[in-house]
Amino acid sequence: MVPHLTTALTGPLLELERQVIEAQGDIEHWLRRQWLAHPAPFYSSVDLRNAGFKLAPVDTNLFPGGFNNLNPDFLPLAVQAAQVAVEKMCADARSFLIIPENHTRNLYYLQNVAALVDIITKTGLSVRIGSLIPDLAEPLVLDLPDGGRLTLEPVRREGNRLKLDGFDPCSILLNNDLTSGAPAILQGLDPAQTMLPPLHAGWATRSKSKHFSAYDGVAHDFSGLIGIDPWLINPYHALCGEVNFQAREGEECLADHVAAMLEKIRVKYREHGIDRDPFVIVKADAGTYGMGIMTVKSPDDVRDLNRKQRNKMGVVKEGLSVTQVLVQEGVPTFESLNAAVAEPVVYMIDHFVIGGFYRVHTGRRVDENLNAPGMHFVPLAFDQSGSFCDCGARPDAPMNRFYTYGVLARLAALAAAVELEKTDPEGEQS
Amino acid sequence: MVPHLTTALTGPLLELERQVIEAQGDIEHWLRRQWLAHPAPFYSSVDLRNAGFKLAPVDTNLFPGGFNNLNPDFLPLAVQAAQVAVEKMCADARSFLIIPENHTRNLYYLQNVAALVDIITKTGLSVRIGSLIPDLAEPLVLDLPDGGRLTLEPVRREGNRLKLDGFDPCSILLNNDLTSGAPAILQGLDPAQTMLPPLHAGWATRSKSKHFSAYDGVAHDFSGLIGIDPWLINPYHALCGEVNFQAREGEECLADHVAAMLEKIRVKYREHGIDRDPFVIVKADAGTYGMGIMTVKSPDDVRDLNRKQRNKMGVVKEGLSVTQVLVQEGVPTFESLNAAVAEPVVYMIDHFVIGGFYRVHTGRRVDENLNAPGMHFVPLAFDQSGSFCDCGARPDAPMNRFYTYGVLARLAALAAAVELEKTDPEGEQS
Repeated sequence: MVPHLTTALTGPLLELERQVIEAQGDIEHWLRRQWLAHPAPFYSSVDLRNAGFKLAPVDTNLFPGGFNNLNPDFLPLAVQAAQVAVEKMCADARSFLIIPENHTRNLYYLQNVAALVDIITKTGLSVRIGSLIPDLAEPLVLDLPDGGRLTLEPVRREGNRLKLDGFDPCSILLNNDLTSGAPAILQGLDPAQTMLPPLHAGWATRSKSKHFSAYDGVAHDFSGLIGIDPWLINPYHALCGEVNFQAREGEECLADHVAAMLEKIRVKYREHGIDRDPFVIVKADAGTYGMGIMTVKSPDDVRDLNRKQRNKMGVVKEGLSVTQVLVQEGVPTFESLNAAVAEPVVYMIDHFVIGGFYRVHTGRRVDENLNAPGMHFVPLAFDQSGSFCDCGARPDAPMNRFYTYGVLARLAALAAAVELEKTDPEGEQS
Repeated sequence: MVPHLTTALTGPLLELERQVIEAQGDIEHWLRRQWLAHPAPFYSSVDLRNAGFKLAPVDTNLFPGGFNNLNPDFLPLAVQAAQVAVEKMCADARSFLIIPENHTRNLYYLQNVAALVDIITKTGLSVRIGSLIPDLAEPLVLDLPDGGRLTLEPVRREGNRLKLDGFDPCSILLNNDLTSGAPAILQGLDPAQTMLPPLHAGWATRSKSKHFSAYDGVAHDFSGLIGIDPWLINPYHALCGEVNFQAREGEECLADHVAAMLEKIRVKYREHGIDRDPFVIVKADAGTYGMGIMTVKSPDDVRDLNRKQRNKMGVVKEGLSVTQVLVQEGVPTFESLNAAVAEPVVYMIDHFVIGGFYRVHTGRRVDENLNAPGMHFVPLAFDQSGSFCDCGARPDAPMNRFYTYGVLARLAALAAAVELEKTDPEGEQS
């Protein structure tokens, strides 16, 4: 079951897909060299938007949830990719500590943690789960919807190593995005106790604008490689600093950016013969979980916020207040399944695409964000891994469409790798 | 559909499988370190025999055919493993030349070449097929049973590089076992034009006795790791030099070895409570394709050969005469499917298990060799990849049985890696 593109504008995307499929050899060769220069994060997931005329990553998650939504047929692919990642990190590794988010009531999230534990365990590593829940004194056993169980154990610090009772892990896999910053217990650890991804991948350090700046470079080089307009794979973005929604500060700056970007999109729409009204997405430059996200079709939309909207935009996860705001070109979603909007999410371990799923949502419009609080979606696992194409088939054959998704997702993961190099507090600043 | 073990003696194997599953962490950790010290061959396939009381590799092929028999569901796993192998070899690789066997009439073999081309092409490399057929002047287009086509092109030498018309490959993948030695056109090539596997992996250099000597060491170390009698995974073997079947020379030496080995097996059978008549396999120490293989239950069997049997044993592929003969403990086959004998073959690319299949044969006894000339088997693809286990399930659950097969196959591939190091004409002799 593969969602359909329900737009009359399939022409340009078919053309983009054709160019990707035809350049497969050049693309894989180019990516092999890129990964040598910029090692991929341990894992990542990338949200894509397929507008028919345009296909672009809109969010790159370095602490991916949703591993439970992947097609179980591709589990061997995930395990093998994790084996490669573990070998690169440390062939001598025996034990992994996974640090999840602190939500103990979100069963879907816990099922994701269980899926991660399963993948890493199947590589032959010993895996336990360490929790940052503040008052956790005893192991906490949680029952999962599928009948399985997770045991969260309190982490403790011994010298410069992080441990559980009777467990001194070689590596620590973060599945916690550290929105409120890296807690002291995770700082200054023994470098031999590898932290994956590094602490500065947390949302307290990361920003979407830095990610998309890195993606600008990647998209530029890739577009040159296959000979396309970079705009076809790269949404415009701009950063608006010093916004305080509650105090109504910075609104004019934001309105100006929105107006300028809507105009730039209109120019591109005319150039490519696209008869649509542009829109932009306004979101917090740091943070995740789809809080503080707004669809804007006119500069007036950000001038006339009511109190409720201001409150919604003003805080993101764990109560951080928004000051930097990203204005991003809206890429409408034209994939649908039985009239429901479907948005692809692609998963990677190291630089390998290991599958993905669609977020299928019936109650939303094509220009709304599906990864929003309270959002209920039905996951639909990809029925192809997306790791290779079939040159003999049509560019929009499912295997080829998923391959194109996999290529775009790898570009976003590559941008994340470049971003992490640039923001590495111990690395050279470029 | 998974074959059944049709023996009352499942006890010991179940015990072996249990020990493998329980030691999964130690095994994977140990293998990771082994692969660092002994890089795996580019690809390999391993024939296993499952006797219920014993499970052992009996043949390790470094030029595997049969990729067309693998489960198509695991194609992504093969492609990903090939990506890793290519990255290790040379991230800058763009083009691969495959050199197949010269059989242009064996459609099953050609279908295997097509499957290999597909796997390598899907990694993003440009692949063409160069043939060593002596008088080939023009490209030869061959139609395949599945409707596909293969084009074999004449190879030519330019200086120290091997080329096709308009094609200067980075790497050469041999799928030709070079039984009659490496032809001059393949010798002294530019080292930058990587040959996979190296020329000395050809059967003109390789010998089964060197392989099983290397396997002795691997099996010894592995058995120590998980605490089992190495005999449970390692058949006895002995080498008989200077045998000439036609001239009836060396028969007594052979009969003595057979007698001694039958007695050693009887001792082990008594030790493990196995109520069976032992047998040994006598085969050429070099060569492949199952020619020159004999099942022997008594020393007299090798003394009273008639002319036909002597002729059959005296030559192997491409008319080479046998002088060195390997005497190997026979491991009976107790897996069956609807009363047909089923023998597993496990496939690897680099050190990754990517699946396998059963050779299912109705017309043979449990103590005969299934890989014999004129043999017709039905391939039954594994329905699990064999790349990981499920610790929560029974040791003989299909996933776990295939994992155990994958572990044994990897031990044989590791032995091949050690063997190739020892026989490398440019390496240090150990």
